[in-house]
Amino acid sequence: MVRFFVDPSELRDNEIVLNKENAAHARVLRLQEGEQVTLCDGDGTDFLCAVSAVNNGNYSLTVLNSVPSESEPAVKVSIYMALPKADKLEHVIQKATELGAYEIVTFPSARCVSRPDEKSLNKKLERWQKIAVSAAEQSGRGRIPKVIVLNSYEGALKRAIQVEKAILFYENEQATTLHMALNQCSAKSFSLLTGPEGGLEEKEVSQAQAAGFSVCTLGKRILRCETAPLCALSAVMYAAMEF
Amino acid sequence: MVRFFVDPSELRDNEIVLNKENAAHARVLRLQEGEQVTLCDGDGTDFLCAVSAVNNGNYSLTVLNSVPSESEPAVKVSIYMALPKADKLEHVIQKATELGAYEIVTFPSARCVSRPDEKSLNKKLERWQKIAVSAAEQSGRGRIPKVIVLNSYEGALKRAIQVEKAILFYENEQATTLHMALNQCSAKSFSLLTGPEGGLEEKEVSQAQAAGFSVCTLGKRILRCETAPLCALSAVMYAAMEF
Repeated sequence: MVRFFVDPSELRDNEIVLNKENAAHARVLRLQEGEQVTLCDGDGTDFLCAVSAVNNGNYSLTVLNSVPSESEPAVKVSIYMALPKADKLEHVIQKATELGAYEIVTFPSARCVSRPDEKSLNKKLERWQKIAVSAAEQSGRGRIPKVIVLNSYEGALKRAIQVEKAILFYENEQATTLHMALNQCSAKSFSLLTGPEGGLEEKEVSQAQAAGFSVCTLGKRILRCETAPLCALSAVMYAAMEF
Repeated sequence: MVRFFVDPSELRDNEIVLNKENAAHARVLRLQEGEQVTLCDGDGTDFLCAVSAVNNGNYSLTVLNSVPSESEPAVKVSIYMALPKADKLEHVIQKATELGAYEIVTFPSARCVSRPDEKSLNKKLERWQKIAVSAAEQSGRGRIPKVIVLNSYEGALKRAIQVEKAILFYENEQATTLHMALNQCSAKSFSLLTGPEGGLEEKEVSQAQAAGFSVCTLGKRILRCETAPLCALSAVMYAAMEF
């Protein structure tokens, strides 16, 4: 069934008129009166709707019922990725959204090469959020992961630790595997933190450890900075019995 | 330590002269007499060597000892990906190599959009293999995954099933999870098969099932064709206790 993301504030008395972008999409799909579609509030609720009227390219819909989105994972996994160069973050936002990430947070760390100023960062953030929306639609998610930019490593640690299980992946860690970190772990909320191109500094890793992070390896090979968060997310989703 | 991939046939009586490409690399690194480097045969064996002479930009090395590469996973995971469009396969080759794939096999399936002729395929294959070499070097692997092109779906099934556990990931499968497929599984060799952009046809899935594949879901979301094999590979490596 066709899915549209809508702002729940547009819903009035179980009626909604599709906004410009969604209406354009509906015209492409030649939606007809009586057809059923799914509206998602982007926050985990799906509304089953019927098209009640089509007038001059405007689409009015009536809500038949609402249910928690079936495509959302039972665990909340937040991705914390130190700001990488160029299009790598875009790649991670797209893929992490498909893989069910709850949110994607980026922040500076000592070896980050990319240091955009605030203005260009705001512009990028808008673009990044659009990538998340589009990936959420394509993959059939019921929730649009928020993309969040923090302005310090300390701020990232402080925020990331507010979950049941915070894990940092470090290429120099050899002893502790993700299996060990997740042993007997029934956490329902996770933060997965990874470094930039040049890796995290040892000092930064110790800082995270002191803040309560588990520090783990992702295997015996050196992963690129854009591969590590997606590998970690896939493994944690698997460990959480999502597939 | 610096790592070079060499053709083992270049080794004579525990001596080797670096070939053109490696010598160029050694010059950039300003390798000196007496320094130690690792040579990998690209097939899982590492040779610890010392630079025995530097003459006119030629580097002679003496092998001190040889050991099985420490960065290779204990499981052999073959990726079988139906031929996708454009640069998606390149992406998967690069990432799957980092993640420890044993080999990457591509083949046509009913809904493949990309149908290159043999000539352009041979050219592409050369490029694809280079991507694997470069990703193997960067990620510190001891083995270069082979990129293999097969010319039929049937051929792919026949080859893929020659392992201990062959799994096909299908977006319409909901009941069987990867956890179920791997339950009590101590396999050391896996084939992971995924479809092209438009997915596999139901008929193709049944055909694989009849050939002995387990058919699994990768979660409740629709993954892009280039995301699915990497998610599956990450999960299987995790399940195999690789990290």
